[in-house]
Amino acid sequence: MSSFAPPVQRLITELGRLPGIGGRTAQRLAFHLLRASEEDALALAEAIKEVKARIGLCEVCFNLSDGPRCRICSDERRDAGLVCVVEEPSDIIPIERTHEFHGRYHVLGGALSPIDGIDPEDLRIAELYTRVTPPADAPQDEHPTPIREVVLATNPTTTGEATALHIAAHLREQAPQVTVTRLASGLPVGADLEYADELTLGRALSGRRALS
Amino acid sequence: MSSFAPPVQRLITELGRLPGIGGRTAQRLAFHLLRASEEDALALAEAIKEVKARIGLCEVCFNLSDGPRCRICSDERRDAGLVCVVEEPSDIIPIERTHEFHGRYHVLGGALSPIDGIDPEDLRIAELYTRVTPPADAPQDEHPTPIREVVLATNPTTTGEATALHIAAHLREQAPQVTVTRLASGLPVGADLEYADELTLGRALSGRRALS
Repeated sequence: MSSFAPPVQRLITELGRLPGIGGRTAQRLAFHLLRASEEDALALAEAIKEVKARIGLCEVCFNLSDGPRCRICSDERRDAGLVCVVEEPSDIIPIERTHEFHGRYHVLGGALSPIDGIDPEDLRIAELYTRVTPPADAPQDEHPTPIREVVLATNPTTTGEATALHIAAHLREQAPQVTVTRLASGLPVGADLEYADELTLGRALSGRRALS
Repeated sequence: MSSFAPPVQRLITELGRLPGIGGRTAQRLAFHLLRASEEDALALAEAIKEVKARIGLCEVCFNLSDGPRCRICSDERRDAGLVCVVEEPSDIIPIERTHEFHGRYHVLGGALSPIDGIDPEDLRIAELYTRVTPPADAPQDEHPTPIREVVLATNPTTTGEATALHIAAHLREQAPQVTVTRLASGLPVGADLEYADELTLGRALSGRRALS
């Protein structure tokens, strides 16, 4: 569109590359930034630059972190013997929001998907195994608490399930002392049985629990 | 949320201040930027900075521009005798998209709304009158073509209508030689009469045209 000055067009293009932001929305956001005060617009630009400059991955769990270790791995009050395995750093947030989990995490960086060419070597699965069974020559202070339970919290999707089963099989064999659990799958709270899909209802049935 | 490093939280906050971007979306966009390559993420930051540094308002029509005059006002092929009055720079885009208008623009910067404290002095209405009736002492080369028609293309809303009526009344009195027109209001193309609202249908009726 010839009526846009090149810097405006460039901003619309860049905004349009964000996920879920279509052409119209990108245009609306660009005009918002043009109308916004210099200070507000530059605060966003600075926040992007800062996040790219300062945020890396935690050396222990591969969560996002602004230091060598993330806030959860640095928190001595969190149970180091309990590790929750998730696909992405963003999966940690909903779990933290429940306030039900007081252990630590391990971020795989995705899920196994041979069809997309994602094999175990592409994920941080080997690093998980090293955390569970540290090599004999590891310095003692690096692994003060042995891991006693691994909660597999990959998504309840085909690839997430496959990843969980893959890790569970390995741990059962290589680290039989460790309990391996999986997030429960079933009806979401507030759901209506009438409208539940068969797969979810099947899971809810096969995973039924005795009422105490 | 204690599990976010401060730079990540700051980015989520800044993204959440964009219009139509809620908390969840801001988080999703932030994680996208974190996953994106350094180059891609910084391209967005740069585009924002550049747009704020280089884009100002056209000295003639107040459209966004990267120079003293916008591309439309600098385009000698555009009819300088025909001026379309719009509320915001973003309103120019859909009009340009029709390829039906070959004149120039005048951006008011909003619409009259006494309830929100927006009076004629807060808009670029005086500047429009100066364009239509240049002062006698204006340098000749600044106004080569006299304006013969003003198309009022403010929104078909209460405030947009009020603004159009206000400008039309003034021009009728002060510049009777100028034709003042208003965008037609009526049924959108492809609409269904059965579902048209009374106001729109009323406008379509009162604005009916003879078929040639």
